[in-house]
Amino acid sequence: MISKARIKWIKSLEMRKYRLQHNAFVAEGPKLVGELLPYFTPLYMAATREWLEDNPQFTSHISLSNCAVDEVSQQELERASLLRTPQSVLAVFPIHNPIPIRKALETGLLLALDGVQDPGNMGTILRIADWFGIRDILCSEGTADVYNPKCVQACMGALARVKVHYCNLAEVLEKAKMPVYGTFLDGTDIYEEELTEGGIIVMGNEGNGISHEVAKHVTRRLLIPNFPKGSITTESLNVAVATGIVCAEFRRRT
Amino acid sequence: MISKARIKWIKSLEMRKYRLQHNAFVAEGPKLVGELLPYFTPLYMAATREWLEDNPQFTSHISLSNCAVDEVSQQELERASLLRTPQSVLAVFPIHNPIPIRKALETGLLLALDGVQDPGNMGTILRIADWFGIRDILCSEGTADVYNPKCVQACMGALARVKVHYCNLAEVLEKAKMPVYGTFLDGTDIYEEELTEGGIIVMGNEGNGISHEVAKHVTRRLLIPNFPKGSITTESLNVAVATGIVCAEFRRRT
Repeated sequence: MISKARIKWIKSLEMRKYRLQHNAFVAEGPKLVGELLPYFTPLYMAATREWLEDNPQFTSHISLSNCAVDEVSQQELERASLLRTPQSVLAVFPIHNPIPIRKALETGLLLALDGVQDPGNMGTILRIADWFGIRDILCSEGTADVYNPKCVQACMGALARVKVHYCNLAEVLEKAKMPVYGTFLDGTDIYEEELTEGGIIVMGNEGNGISHEVAKHVTRRLLIPNFPKGSITTESLNVAVATGIVCAEFRRRT
Repeated sequence: MISKARIKWIKSLEMRKYRLQHNAFVAEGPKLVGELLPYFTPLYMAATREWLEDNPQFTSHISLSNCAVDEVSQQELERASLLRTPQSVLAVFPIHNPIPIRKALETGLLLALDGVQDPGNMGTILRIADWFGIRDILCSEGTADVYNPKCVQACMGALARVKVHYCNLAEVLEKAKMPVYGTFLDGTDIYEEELTEGGIIVMGNEGNGISHEVAKHVTRRLLIPNFPKGSITTESLNVAVATGIVCAEFRRRT
């Protein structure tokens, strides 16, 4: 049984304002919750008896912490869920404030997102970062909130391993002592450009690309060439796809 | 003014069954319709006066054809639209049956989709194909319909330049005389594998990858290595991102 107060709290976490206020986010479904539990101790969980019985390794771990756990029916879960089709378990995790940005700027290869808006793209980009061993993502303040429920569901376990830093991106890039890369339609063919092992790769908004303010600090302008080079095609690749191609090329060379 | 019969016809095209029956699909919004009009002559259009006045090049072209055009108010457009936020123009285009598959199998590099389900991924993959000069995509019968309104909106102009062939994919691959590539978590590092200029690149379903039946016909199993190689990360990349990375690598080498 989930109390009314808890349902209200969970529902409130759909909004960024309340996520910031409560410093917490919601994750749902056995796959995602199972991927996050080894990394984060939840503040609260609601799960069906079936899920609890199938996951004794987590339940014994959780009972040692201060996490409240409610055993619920599928119908009860539906009342609390932020999803259209809730699946056996819902957990509220604390938001850990990432390490200071200065520290992140010493870790090799980083991504920076300048106004990426679509939660699906955000999630896909976190998975790309995770796949390619990129531990930190800088985000402009206009970038989608990674703790948005849609984004959380798209990130899967990558959310546990990749740190996301919201910041004044232009200011941070201005002070960065690493090369700053960005993709532009008038950039240099990425396959002909020297790529350093460390650096910051900036990716822009879905419709408008990298903002003027941030572009000023990009020191190396890259282009993913189309084929045949310069032919008339789609005007741009999806931002997550472009991120994947650029990250793969950086890692291929190291 | 749009007749009731027309609204019914447009709304019916949200369903695959009726798209097949009427051999037509709906595209909406000035950007998408503007990209498709140079390639396809519509069967029908509804547009606001503003759009018609802003696009004389299309309207004079269309009036020469048999296309019926209704000048409508924004409210009327909302009654016919398949989108939540309709934008100034809606067009119904005919579905052109693509050239026979045999012909497509002679054109160099192809993509094959085995059960890709998400319309957003389908659209993104069409844009990747277009960007990298891949003219034909083979799709298993279980793959999302490219003329699904969500998919059409995600494809943008790529829909005009890339041909999509629905077929019994396993059968077609069995008879193919080109190398058949596919990505698998136990494949060979793509950067260490010889890639031919022509061939078929198979990409699988979002959750389950390439089906057993289709996998039998993959002659070269590839892996996009993560970083550091073999570390514990996200279990897989999004299918559209993986498609982008593989296509970019094929084109980099040619």
